[in-house]
This record gives sequence, C-alpha cells and structure tokens, in this order.
Amino acid sequence: MKKPYILVVNDDGITAPGIKALIEVSKELGDVVVVAPDKPQSGMGHAITFNSTLHIQQMEVEGVPGYACSGTPVDCVKLAVSTLLAKKPDLIVSGINHGSNSSINVIYSGTMSAAVEGALQDIPSVGFSLLDHSIDANFGAAKVITKNIIGNLLSHPLPKGFCLNVNIPNVNEQLIVGIKICRQAKGNWVEDYDARKDPMGRTYYWLTGKFIIDDDGTDTDEWALANNYVSVVPVKHDITDYEVLKTIKWLANEKV
Amino acid sequence: MKKPYILVVNDDGITAPGIKALIEVSKELGDVVVVAPDKPQSGMGHAITFNSTLHIQQMEVEGVPGYACSGTPVDCVKLAVSTLLAKKPDLIVSGINHGSNSSINVIYSGTMSAAVEGALQDIPSVGFSLLDHSIDANFGAAKVITKNIIGNLLSHPLPKGFCLNVNIPNVNEQLIVGIKICRQAKGNWVEDYDARKDPMGRTYYWLTGKFIIDDDGTDTDEWALANNYVSVVPVKHDITDYEVLKTIKWLANEKV
Repeated sequence: MKKPYILVVNDDGITAPGIKALIEVSKELGDVVVVAPDKPQSGMGHAITFNSTLHIQQMEVEGVPGYACSGTPVDCVKLAVSTLLAKKPDLIVSGINHGSNSSINVIYSGTMSAAVEGALQDIPSVGFSLLDHSIDANFGAAKVITKNIIGNLLSHPLPKGFCLNVNIPNVNEQLIVGIKICRQAKGNWVEDYDARKDPMGRTYYWLTGKFIIDDDGTDTDEWALANNYVSVVPVKHDITDYEVLKTIKWLANEKV
Repeated sequence: MKKPYILVVNDDGITAPGIKALIEVSKELGDVVVVAPDKPQSGMGHAITFNSTLHIQQMEVEGVPGYACSGTPVDCVKLAVSTLLAKKPDLIVSGINHGSNSSINVIYSGTMSAAVEGALQDIPSVGFSLLDHSIDANFGAAKVITKNIIGNLLSHPLPKGFCLNVNIPNVNEQLIVGIKICRQAKGNWVEDYDARKDPMGRTYYWLTGKFIIDDDGTDTDEWALANNYVSVVPVKHDITDYEVLKTIKWLANEKV
C-alpha cells in the first residue's frame, strides 16, 4: 500500500514541543512534510497575509523536510498546498496545540483554523490539542492517542470537507476513559483587560479574562474533557445559521 | 422611546470611507460610539491579541466619540464591550467593508469576525459589505440600504446570538431588486502565490488567487448578488458539523 502523505502544521511555531510530538507520530504512519509558523501564532484565527509578503526557510525538523513560514497557520496551509508541496497531501494534522481548543476557543485557534483551511481545500484535516498550556507539557499520552486516531482516519473513507477538533485531557494515559464524539459546548470569554501605564504615562491594555461555560449538556466537548474523555468535534466551514434563516424571512419583505 | 446605543466597528480602519458611511447612517438611528482599528486589518479573521498589548487613541469621528485601537477587529469589540463603553450596546454594526464578504470569505473577514464576536457577547450584530474594493467606492446606495436594514432590526425582537452577513451589489440604487435571505454559497480560493526575489536574492511570496464558486443553488448569497439582490446570511458561531457527527460514531469505538 502507498504510504499516505501527511502535512503537519501548528500555531505554536515550528520549534514547539507539541509539533515535534505530532511529527514523531505522523512519521510512523506516512511520509511527512512540515510547514509551520516561524514564531508563535496562537489566537490568529483564520487570519491570512495579503497586504504583506511571506518568507520561508527550508529546514529539517525531527528528520523530515520542513519549512518555517513567516505567516499565520492558515498561510502555512495555503502556501504548502498551492506552492511548496509537490503533490496534494492525503491528510493534514495540526498541533499538538499547547492548550485547549474546546468550545468557542475553536474560532480563535490558529491550530484549528489551519485544519479548517485544509478541509476547505478538500483535504481531510484534524487539529489536536492537549489541555496543558505549558511549554514543557507532557505529550506522552497525547502521542499514543494521536497516533491511534490518525491511523484510524487513514484507514476509513472520509467525506468531503472533513475536519475534526480533537482535545486531549491532561491526565495519565491510564485515566483516559475513551473517545467521545461531541458537539462544541456553548461558552464564551468574559474579558477583563488589565490597564497599565507605559513609561510615557499612556494607558495600554493586556487581555485577560474568564472562560464561562453556558451549557450543561452531556454531549459537549467540555463535558467529555471534564470526564477524562478525548473529545472529538467535527467542524464545518459553512457558518450559515439555518435556524435563524427561517425566522428572518420578514426582512426580505421590507423596503430595501 | 430610548435611543438605541450602537457600536460601530470595521476592519478597514477608523479612517476608511466605509466606516464614515456607516457612522453617518447609524447617527440618524441612535447614539453612536466607534471603536475601530487604527490601520487596515482586512483578512484578520477572528484573530485576537494576547501576546502583546493594545493601545487606544480617543478621537471624534464624524461627530461621534471614537477610539482608534491598535488591535484586530475582534480586539476592538472585546475592548469596547468590556472596558471602553459605559454600557452594553444594543447593536453592533461592522463595516461598511470595501469589498465582498460573501461565501467562504466570511471566515477570513475581520468585518464579519467583529460581528460574530458581538453576537458571542449576546449583542445583535450585523456586518455590511459593498462589492467594491476601491478606496473611493460609492457608498450612496449602500447607505440607504444599510439604514433601512438597521432601522428594521432595531424595531424587531432578535434571538440570542443574532448575527447577519449583509452584502450589497455595487450597482445604482434603482437596479437593486430587493433583499434575499440566503445561505453561504460553497466556494473557495485557489491560491497562486507570486514568487519574487528580494534584493538579497531570497524568495518571497505574494498571495494571489482565484475565487471558485462550487455551488449552483439559487438560495445562496452568490446567486443573490449576481442577480442584484442584497444578500443577507445569518451566521452562527457553533461550527459543529452535526451531519458528520452522526457518521463518525465508529471512531468512539476504536482503541484510544
């Protein structure tokens, strides 16, 4: 059987421990190429670069060919698929992110936006995140889980536009209960900007805030993670609200 | 009746002609405050700033109080709602964007991400875009349409998390057929990076590409715009793919 061709991306940057873990795992399952930001690009959402230019630097990463890119995670996918790679990847894997991308965090996440961009280009794509923000997070259990999931996905036919958001609890492998297929929990951040004075006496602001889960469903990613399941949320890029679509037909009857 | 309190944001920056048009219209319908990027922030998607700081500059814009913010469109909404404004706005309007945000462009758009962020904070939010990229676009017809839509929304009860993506054809007012409530058309960009050499002989890349509509439905925003309708797509921030959710239950039965 032909070895699958796997593109590895992330948002924490090409030197992050999380991407090294993902490369190690992917190498055991296919031919791997890495295109990842040359610096941390967390929280970049679906940002793209078109008012300035992109630069790349070729390098070997964990024994596979890699490119460090000056742009965002979505830039990395676009540049890889259109320009840098000789052929279309069979799978794009993004991460392993240092920190959770559950619930509404999915829309701010560079890791997940890279996966969504892959799906948009008709390449099955999966973002992986470990619930530990620290630079020295332990990716031991996450590697085992990630390898099993990637292996399973590679051996199944997947629909067009396939994209998964996988979050992994930060606990010992033995404590992981299983995988749960979930919906994105309702939640949002309540910001509390920390206002400070710069040496010139001008105010500047640091983003801080508290994450509020507004959802008591047992079918959500937040519930799964709180109960030591790996959460798997399928993600789509058609963001039409079909429920509201039915209820605002009245607007079309108003004077334009 | 109490005048509605309206927050105006955009992604083209606080000095763009499009935001001036939107402020003029909003002033006629309520009390207006502006919080907008201090420079163009197109294509920033749902990016947020947390690894660096935000700065603001207070200024009057078109006769209303305004703040130029060093961050992204989503930063503007977060900072406005949590910190800068004395009370929660009744409505957030974003734009008027110079250029289309129809189809998949909605996920790259700073204009629309600002509106989505507003909806997330339980403030009804609408993004407006005119199908003309140029700096000297004619916002004449767009102003009339925008005012009618905002006026209608202010006089109707709106559901929690309400968010609309409104695109306006770039034609004379007389040629506009009406408003059409639509779904987001399937489409995507096929990138063609323009590779150049810098003075040091190193390659750099400019993003260029072609937008491909892969949808022949007559219920889409692309169809509406091509037929001189104003397209209105309700947008949501739960991006769970509920169809795929049903079909990948098998993954939960695999070894974790």
